[in-house]
Amino acid sequence: MSDERLIYMPLGGAGEIGMNCYVYGYGRPGEERLIVVDLGVAFPDMDSSPGVDLIMADVAWLEENRSRIEAIFITHAHEDHIGALGHLWPRLRAPVYARKFTAAIGAGKLEEAGQPIDALHVVGPRPAVTEAGPFKVQFVPVSHSIPESAGLVIDSPAGRVIHTGDFKLDGSPVVGEPFNPEEWHQIGREAGQVLALTCDSTNVFSPAPGRSEATLAAPIAELIGQHEGLVVATTFASNVARLKTLAEAGRAAGRSICLLGRAMNKMVTAAQQTGILTGFPPVLTPEQAEEVGDQNLMLIVTGSQGERRAASAALSRGKYLGHELKEGDLFLFSSKIIPGNERGVYRIVNALSEKGVEVVDDRGGLYHVSGHANRPDLEAVHELVNPRILVPMHGEHRHLREHAAIAAAKGLASAVVTNGTMISLGGDKPVVVAHVEAGRTYLDGTVLIGALDGVVRDRIRMALNGLVLVTVIIDEGGEPLGDAWVELMGLPEKGAAGRDLAEEMERDLSEFLAKAADKLIADDDKLDEQVKRVVRQTALVEVGKKPEVVCVISRLMAE
Amino acid sequence: MSDERLIYMPLGGAGEIGMNCYVYGYGRPGEERLIVVDLGVAFPDMDSSPGVDLIMADVAWLEENRSRIEAIFITHAHEDHIGALGHLWPRLRAPVYARKFTAAIGAGKLEEAGQPIDALHVVGPRPAVTEAGPFKVQFVPVSHSIPESAGLVIDSPAGRVIHTGDFKLDGSPVVGEPFNPEEWHQIGREAGQVLALTCDSTNVFSPAPGRSEATLAAPIAELIGQHEGLVVATTFASNVARLKTLAEAGRAAGRSICLLGRAMNKMVTAAQQTGILTGFPPVLTPEQAEEVGDQNLMLIVTGSQGERRAASAALSRGKYLGHELKEGDLFLFSSKIIPGNERGVYRIVNALSEKGVEVVDDRGGLYHVSGHANRPDLEAVHELVNPRILVPMHGEHRHLREHAAIAAAKGLASAVVTNGTMISLGGDKPVVVAHVEAGRTYLDGTVLIGALDGVVRDRIRMALNGLVLVTVIIDEGGEPLGDAWVELMGLPEKGAAGRDLAEEMERDLSEFLAKAADKLIADDDKLDEQVKRVVRQTALVEVGKKPEVVCVISRLMAE
Repeated sequence: MSDERLIYMPLGGAGEIGMNCYVYGYGRPGEERLIVVDLGVAFPDMDSSPGVDLIMADVAWLEENRSRIEAIFITHAHEDHIGALGHLWPRLRAPVYARKFTAAIGAGKLEEAGQPIDALHVVGPRPAVTEAGPFKVQFVPVSHSIPESAGLVIDSPAGRVIHTGDFKLDGSPVVGEPFNPEEWHQIGREAGQVLALTCDSTNVFSPAPGRSEATLAAPIAELIGQHEGLVVATTFASNVARLKTLAEAGRAAGRSICLLGRAMNKMVTAAQQTGILTGFPPVLTPEQAEEVGDQNLMLIVTGSQGERRAASAALSRGKYLGHELKEGDLFLFSSKIIPGNERGVYRIVNALSEKGVEVVDDRGGLYHVSGHANRPDLEAVHELVNPRILVPMHGEHRHLREHAAIAAAKGLASAVVTNGTMISLGGDKPVVVAHVEAGRTYLDGTVLIGALDGVVRDRIRMALNGLVLVTVIIDEGGEPLGDAWVELMGLPEKGAAGRDLAEEMERDLSEFLAKAADKLIADDDKLDEQVKRVVRQTALVEVGKKPEVVCVISRLMAE
Repeated sequence: MSDERLIYMPLGGAGEIGMNCYVYGYGRPGEERLIVVDLGVAFPDMDSSPGVDLIMADVAWLEENRSRIEAIFITHAHEDHIGALGHLWPRLRAPVYARKFTAAIGAGKLEEAGQPIDALHVVGPRPAVTEAGPFKVQFVPVSHSIPESAGLVIDSPAGRVIHTGDFKLDGSPVVGEPFNPEEWHQIGREAGQVLALTCDSTNVFSPAPGRSEATLAAPIAELIGQHEGLVVATTFASNVARLKTLAEAGRAAGRSICLLGRAMNKMVTAAQQTGILTGFPPVLTPEQAEEVGDQNLMLIVTGSQGERRAASAALSRGKYLGHELKEGDLFLFSSKIIPGNERGVYRIVNALSEKGVEVVDDRGGLYHVSGHANRPDLEAVHELVNPRILVPMHGEHRHLREHAAIAAAKGLASAVVTNGTMISLGGDKPVVVAHVEAGRTYLDGTVLIGALDGVVRDRIRMALNGLVLVTVIIDEGGEPLGDAWVELMGLPEKGAAGRDLAEEMERDLSEFLAKAADKLIADDDKLDEQVKRVVRQTALVEVGKKPEVVCVISRLMAE
């Protein structure tokens, strides 16, 4: 069967941190049987995707090859790995495999999207094996910042590949399984040399070894113990271990605990129902918490990334669910700022500062540890697994490149494989065998649109340039009826010289229409083009901008 | 004269880092004679100010009290201190005082804005004194990240105030004057106890003492000396000392130097013409640089903050002025990322990474030092000056609050005084005496608009929600003529169910118009309101969004 091959192709996650979606295949070229690893989302921003709700990988290629998909595996329940399940599953319709907690979150995603959940299968950790066409797949527990994260051991007729998923080397992760170096050593050897290690690259630029989740308990308890007013802490809703550490510190300081935020309550409930979270302190409902004095209460809240609709932002703005922060209260960010979210987070910090609240962040690293393996940890895993090839994933291009450079420095074959690049993994080094169109799909309201469809481009243009709307009515005889009518959106009413912008445009349009040849007036496209030209020129003179223009030409018909 | 008072009021810079504008006054309440310190800008972002060119303090209060303004002092030539001079001076029309280099940059700002430059006066450093009504003002040289930065010693009949401007404690700043602790000790004592120290707060959260500009020369030279391909370095255009350090390192490595970017050439020229920059290595024109081999060339370029139109971004995208970066080239960010600019900077880093360029940033602090005093440096200056009151400025609320807390911990009177708050400085502690409306003014194209005028709000709404444009024609008899016409901007053409969105809206509008009472159709406001309601409802059903709607109703008149 020498004409069969083992392939790997990222569709999302190799070129950004977010919207993870990786494809493995085995079989004859073009007929490989496929498995998909993760269906995640990325989050929009005003700069590049205003108004968009979620960003996900473009799975058009997978959809075209749907009959070849054997299974979808979800490594863990972070949004960037599972968030697109409800939206993209209807296009792929393959069985979905995940561990218990991840499956519980996945079921919620499918239900929210109105999809059936019977394709979703709960799988136990290794040595449990899921057969998917030519593949045999095992979930290997790893430590991360959410329970039940897993790497995947992917066995094919060509040999073994290990897909790390997101992980860190934590021997005491508070909730969930520790990272087990002996097991990783074993899976690196039990089936001969591993062909490829597809490896998390997020923290490749962090030079110090990562720290354990367990190191946070003492400093957090000490911080909270010192305070007398209301204590509020925020972290990622899915970091169940952190929630437990925070809640236990609050209890130790004699405080009742209340969780605010839908996502946080959902995560804790799922973790408790699936049995992976035990011993979490009792929590009050928001209604009960209103009755507790500030000195006896700790709120653990969503919104550590500055999200405007989450509890942190709401508390920074004013009274929220009966609580109003004031001088002497403590607000702890047990989190780091994901690059790009600085403005939103500092907006909250400044609003809290205005209220006199003491804001404590991760400065110094006392109150937060990362969920990803740092550079020396990555190197340790390379050595534990000892693969033939290292394939960096889960990173922007700069992360992937740095990770590949680390491998190269050790004589380990590697390559920067970005979204849409298909490589063959059978040999001594990765070989590019194809390129596939790999873009982004936006969830916009309830509609999936392509990132390059022009919809978002038009929004950005309107935001940058403002909009002029021109209405021209042409009568039955082909003559302009009255003057053109101009409406402005997102443009100043008056220009630098103090003249009314819309009136100037109407005047210039009237002059233009009065002089325009009948032939021009009769031609929709040309008239539209010339109206836009006149309007833009007037705008440039009056306000120094060239706005977007929409021109509606209404032609009255002889009855 | 006990009924006269000394007042301080920030209009910009005390609540953000940017758009600095501070006012001091002395006289009878409401009749104080005023001086203005700095007229700076802040920079827009897509989140809060899309399409805006520059942000500046709202000087409406100053304009109303123009006859009371004795002078405008500019501490240094950074954009956040001088950038609004050309735009706001016409509203204030007071004499402007600055040191030589700052005045050269200021003259350019006035000329660009078509303003005369005869109000601009060059002032030497202390002991030179500028009299401005009841004030006597001296410029005290300080080290910063631009030449000729100055603090101001402001003497009034009530006593002395010191306004630090932006500064760091640098004894070896490479270009310009070192910070002179003896002089600061003296100005803190020669006129009795200083009433107030108005003090830079930018780096109050940086716990280690600041480092000197001179520490960078060796590591930068070593880095550049190791490389064989093209070397490109970026930093702030105004950091003339850094430009010199970079250029000298390039020369030492046998490379010719070329500066790319308008702002950078302008700064170096101004620094050379005013005599403050000497010994800068010879530079090639871009045309000459095209003829030099990569191994013999170093480009020093603008755009360290990711600005899309600057040279760094252009080089990351492809060929620029004859240069195309490739594998083996070096790109050095001799700069830090100002919070909020991460996305733009990483866009460039990733694009360079795709080209195989080695990108080196400030990680580790080897290649960049800050221009602002860190926490221990601020404390040192508090002690040197020993004022009665500390007034933190140049910071977001969180910075001002932290700075005030440091003072309070030492028993030094302080207060967080934000934009628009007027305090009296005569006593043992600051006393709030008034609040003034203090907003933001936007330069949008060539027009100054208010931040709350609604223009930018409409842009943000169009960007988030998309826009529907509806045209309805009502005939002479008061009946709708034909169907309503719908145009979409920034909305998907088809809804989740696959129906054409504009057609659905037109259909629903036709149904609505057919049923609408004559009285409703005759009423522009009501018809507009109902059309919008119908369109939004259709959009919600089809695409799950509520768009902005503009409705143009054209009524044909009987002839």
